[in-house]
Amino acid sequence: MNAAIRGVAKTLMLRAQTEIIGIEDGFLGFIERRSRTLTYQDCSGILSLGGTMIGTHNRANPFDYMGEDRSRAVKEYYDELALDALVIIGGDGTLSIGYELTKLGMNIVGVPKTIDNDLMCTERTFGFDTAVSIVTDAIDRLRTTGQSHQRIMIVETMGRNAGWIALHAGIAGGADSILLPEHPYDINLVADACNQRMGTHHFSIVVVAEGAKPINGEVCTRETIKDSPEPTRLGGIGDQLKQQLEQLTDAEIRSTTLGHIQRGGSPTSFDRIFATNLGSYAAGLVINKQFNLAVIQRGNQLSEVPLDSVAHKTRNIPNDDPTLQTALSMGICFGTETLLRSGAKLNEPE
Amino acid sequence: MNAAIRGVAKTLMLRAQTEIIGIEDGFLGFIERRSRTLTYQDCSGILSLGGTMIGTHNRANPFDYMGEDRSRAVKEYYDELALDALVIIGGDGTLSIGYELTKLGMNIVGVPKTIDNDLMCTERTFGFDTAVSIVTDAIDRLRTTGQSHQRIMIVETMGRNAGWIALHAGIAGGADSILLPEHPYDINLVADACNQRMGTHHFSIVVVAEGAKPINGEVCTRETIKDSPEPTRLGGIGDQLKQQLEQLTDAEIRSTTLGHIQRGGSPTSFDRIFATNLGSYAAGLVINKQFNLAVIQRGNQLSEVPLDSVAHKTRNIPNDDPTLQTALSMGICFGTETLLRSGAKLNEPE
Amino acid sequence: MNAAIRGVAKTLMLRAQTEIIGIEDGFLGFIERRSRTLTYQDCSGILSLGGTMIGTHNRANPFDYMGEDRSRAVKEYYDELALDALVIIGGDGTLSIGYELTKLGMNIVGVPKTIDNDLMCTERTFGFDTAVSIVTDAIDRLRTTGQSHQRIMIVETMGRNAGWIALHAGIAGGADSILLPEHPYDINLVADACNQRMGTHHFSIVVVAEGAKPINGEVCTRETIKDSPEPTRLGGIGDQLKQQLEQLTDAEIRSTTLGHIQRGGSPTSFDRIFATNLGSYAAGLVINKQFNLAVIQRGNQLSEVPLDSVAHKTRNIPNDDPTLQTALSMGICFGTETLLRSGAKLNEPE
Amino acid sequence: MNAAIRGVAKTLMLRAQTEIIGIEDGFLGFIERRSRTLTYQDCSGILSLGGTMIGTHNRANPFDYMGEDRSRAVKEYYDELALDALVIIGGDGTLSIGYELTKLGMNIVGVPKTIDNDLMCTERTFGFDTAVSIVTDAIDRLRTTGQSHQRIMIVETMGRNAGWIALHAGIAGGADSILLPEHPYDINLVADACNQRMGTHHFSIVVVAEGAKPINGEVCTRETIKDSPEPTRLGGIGDQLKQQLEQLTDAEIRSTTLGHIQRGGSPTSFDRIFATNLGSYAAGLVINKQFNLAVIQRGNQLSEVPLDSVAHKTRNIPNDDPTLQTALSMGICFGTETLLRSGAKLNEPE
Repeated sequence: MNAAIRGVAKTLMLRAQTEIIGIEDGFLGFIERRSRTLTYQDCSGILSLGGTMIGTHNRANPFDYMGEDRSRAVKEYYDELALDALVIIGGDGTLSIGYELTKLGMNIVGVPKTIDNDLMCTERTFGFDTAVSIVTDAIDRLRTTGQSHQRIMIVETMGRNAGWIALHAGIAGGADSILLPEHPYDINLVADACNQRMGTHHFSIVVVAEGAKPINGEVCTRETIKDSPEPTRLGGIGDQLKQQLEQLTDAEIRSTTLGHIQRGGSPTSFDRIFATNLGSYAAGLVINKQFNLAVIQRGNQLSEVPLDSVAHKTRNIPNDDPTLQTALSMGICFGTETLLRSGAKLNEPE
Repeated sequence: MNAAIRGVAKTLMLRAQTEIIGIEDGFLGFIERRSRTLTYQDCSGILSLGGTMIGTHNRANPFDYMGEDRSRAVKEYYDELALDALVIIGGDGTLSIGYELTKLGMNIVGVPKTIDNDLMCTERTFGFDTAVSIVTDAIDRLRTTGQSHQRIMIVETMGRNAGWIALHAGIAGGADSILLPEHPYDINLVADACNQRMGTHHFSIVVVAEGAKPINGEVCTRETIKDSPEPTRLGGIGDQLKQQLEQLTDAEIRSTTLGHIQRGGSPTSFDRIFATNLGSYAAGLVINKQFNLAVIQRGNQLSEVPLDSVAHKTRNIPNDDPTLQTALSMGICFGTETLLRSGAKLNEPE
Repeated sequence: MNAAIRGVAKTLMLRAQTEIIGIEDGFLGFIERRSRTLTYQDCSGILSLGGTMIGTHNRANPFDYMGEDRSRAVKEYYDELALDALVIIGGDGTLSIGYELTKLGMNIVGVPKTIDNDLMCTERTFGFDTAVSIVTDAIDRLRTTGQSHQRIMIVETMGRNAGWIALHAGIAGGADSILLPEHPYDINLVADACNQRMGTHHFSIVVVAEGAKPINGEVCTRETIKDSPEPTRLGGIGDQLKQQLEQLTDAEIRSTTLGHIQRGGSPTSFDRIFATNLGSYAAGLVINKQFNLAVIQRGNQLSEVPLDSVAHKTRNIPNDDPTLQTALSMGICFGTETLLRSGAKLNEPE
Repeated sequence: MNAAIRGVAKTLMLRAQTEIIGIEDGFLGFIERRSRTLTYQDCSGILSLGGTMIGTHNRANPFDYMGEDRSRAVKEYYDELALDALVIIGGDGTLSIGYELTKLGMNIVGVPKTIDNDLMCTERTFGFDTAVSIVTDAIDRLRTTGQSHQRIMIVETMGRNAGWIALHAGIAGGADSILLPEHPYDINLVADACNQRMGTHHFSIVVVAEGAKPINGEVCTRETIKDSPEPTRLGGIGDQLKQQLEQLTDAEIRSTTLGHIQRGGSPTSFDRIFATNLGSYAAGLVINKQFNLAVIQRGNQLSEVPLDSVAHKTRNIPNDDPTLQTALSMGICFGTETLLRSGAKLNEPE
């Protein structure tokens, strides 16, 4: 986050000699009228820090703030500060709000940030590489224990709608099964894969995204637990999978939910570079007075698309994704036969 | 683990020109008669690997193996291999079994290994520094998120009987409250500390050991859940604490259970050195034909004690522990007033 | 390296039910007739290890092995093993030898691996992300010291012909000046940048690639030192730069040459995934009997090109590289004005 | 550093309700009259950061500041600020200055900090564990390269007068030879050890402390180079060792000087805890009005000694150090026979 802000600010300072104002705590800062001028000094030495230098990832939505539409207040403060443009950094929610604000006449440039990597139009979002790296690290540790104790280790990762983190960390960590929201799984196929692996290797690693679902029957996500009048015993998908596999295998099983340690911490060098590039490119758009756009990466180059092409959408893993194809080619279990039938082809040059 | 085995083996190879035999998978290897000669080569390049080079942390207890006493089989294989001595590496369970085996006439030297640091007679066990380092890393990440989102973050660490990991990682990670098995906590004091901290810092970190308990009333540990006929919704102490604090504070709260990622992975340099020293010292005992001892650290020096002084016991955090005293001096909340009343004094030179 | 081998082997095992033979120690294994069948087991649990599972990065060139052309011996052993194809993994040298061997009738598929990222046709090589991550880590540490002691810290990175590592780690580490082989630097501009930075921030970080050169006059690289009859005092470019800047600034200066710690160690999750993808894709080419190709990444997709398009060439940083443009936009000093004059434009959407 | 300051400040704030003033940039802040009140806020969230929160590790010596004795100015500012006591954190230099200042009537408590671990009276200094951990990490990486390329890898670590870092990181990294300032080495013994290791393992790792010396003849340290009128070609001891071993072995050899990356960066959890404990204990001494003392660790407990027992002295590795004994027991080469003759005994319980 800091890397992107720094990229925006340092580029604007150097090339536009303009004043940069940081709005504190996201859109909440607009509502509560809190902002401060950022100096060159403010933007130095912050690359290796996690979090944000200008307050919190506040998720205040000005169109529905404590039940009220406060979007006019945002526009008023924007006018009062006499801003030329507003650069917003965030995921689908933030960019969607940004898109709505353009309708009030604000000049907005969006920078895609989400650890889930599930924004439309861009091949990558920053934060994703850091999250994958943390999850891979955890899988490496669990493998040591799994090997030593001859167990099936289940790892539940973030990814409610899209399975990017589970797929990538699963490949990097050498998982035997990877279960994704994109492809409802057949628990029998997963159990078969575990049993086979236990036979040869005496341990098995299953990586499951938070939003993965079995093909038959409902599943209690944390969401449904929260909303249901009758609390059930089960936690998330990792715990449920453990219970199911305990009935279909003889192995001892442990489930770990990584939770919030997937966020935060010092970003990888990859994410720092990528975020700096995105921020600096966003500043270029501002200087050129090109607004209501989101910066994206496509074909390994930076580019831009209208904000509304990314708003209110989710990008799932497509069947021709190179890493998904690799996983298929290497026989990693997705608990599904329909994946192949649905048109995914093996990693095969035509 | 590998560092200790390497320390034992390389010292014996060099100084006693003896053959070293590795028993695979712990005591199970004795029962199933599986072993192999370790070469100098086997013991090279293994320092940075987690896990064990000679199989699994099998917890087979030969005195109660699938309901049978197989301890005679252990002694028979020991005699058949014509071993001069057996070096065992492990925690209370392993060393206690070792102590019982000495009664059958086996020559045994024990090396204390447990991430929980709760063995009697020794100031430290190896594995502990690595576990503290992993937990501290996780707290650092959770702090970033806690700060950004203005939340109370609860971290549940290992430590069923003793709170060493929670105390040390709590200090290293800058926790505001640390709840230990040694001192039942008053939830009202914890809530007060959180509320005060939220007032000044807008976030708070609570580290709680798996075996921590509130002062009044029963608590459902994972243990009791497993045994209880009626499964309850609650997970471990972290989840319960979350539920309790949600009623006593206004803050948004997240609970993370670190679980098995606290085990495994590459050991810290501290643990590698310490384990090598312990292993090499154990080899010295073998060479000197001093048996039925456990290697310990006391006053920063290595030494040895009879195996039965460490068997079947747990070492809790004493009230004069320097790190506990530091925590008291710095106003970290333990959710208890009895801690002070019970004789713990502040970090104060007499 | 292991990730790529694993990707090749597991894909071939699953999809072609063929035998996989590993040649030990690169081309040396062909000359010395050393190979072994790889099992599925061999390819498990090796992802997090650095180095190679089948011996050394031997640089034996069969066309000039101790002065002799031993390429026929390679072909003979290839025929004797009745190989369908040979997958080679390496940088320009390895792929160039591979290209020459195709002329003897061997079926070859190349996988591009070099930490320098300087292979033609591919946007990335695996190993690069890991090297950048190590260098960034080192810069983070040096910044702490630089800040505390008010110094100019010079970091010399690998990159004899191309400056990829210096550029990327420089951006990720927040360097103030980055000197690249691609653009001979004017020491006066570098000194100006340092002086200005010392004035405002009291420390400055200069990242210099091994092969960077000043615009005027010869420079003694380690290469020239090795060959020269008269050894000179100076070490590499980092030490020279230190000496030059000591004359042009008042600051205390320290130079650190990272050297071989940039190689080796556990690969990043990014490199593990990328290498697995490349290896699996190479296996697909083998299955389809498409030979004498190198696997590449272009536009974020995997693809292939004839081996001779990558052989005997180096890929420098182009002027429209997004990260180079970011660096220019943010005012990072390259010690050159010609960079802009030579056609590099600022990070500016047209 | 920050951990120690935080330990001092939070303890004093809680227990003495006193004002805490931070002097900026060490003794320089006294001379230039720069200080500021530290708030509770200042001391939060700083544990994981390297460096210092109150300016630089300035090495200004008030008794010889630009040729003048400015110690009276220090005392004057101390009186003007009406300080009850001054807590100083640093190595031999800082503590020695502190001792001299007590003679002017200042109340001083010293906290021992140096990565070299070479202060008298204390078993450990903080910063040491972090440095050992960084060096071990580097050795792990170099081992990968050494193994792959069949080389002797030389690693030069800090340690001009005492070899603590080299010894500890050497054991943690699995070095085959460790050369220390305490024991002048015989290059022939080192070469023998390398040759033997190359025969069996095809690579060898030599860790050498900056201040190590050969038994016969002078050696050019960086120090002597700096002072000598005639610059010599050789760099530090690592480069010299490389040159010597190239004549006595057939192996390819690489030498890496770790330099300033051994300082700085995020401290290990061990150092954070230790520094917090020391700082909090120092605050306890201040509260009890016990002055002119240094906090030390002895027998794993904190304690205190008069400042002059640590001033102007260096602690070398004693012959009965457990880690040195382990190294001897495991056959690690020190390039010396006198080590044994001089009374060092093997790691052997009496």
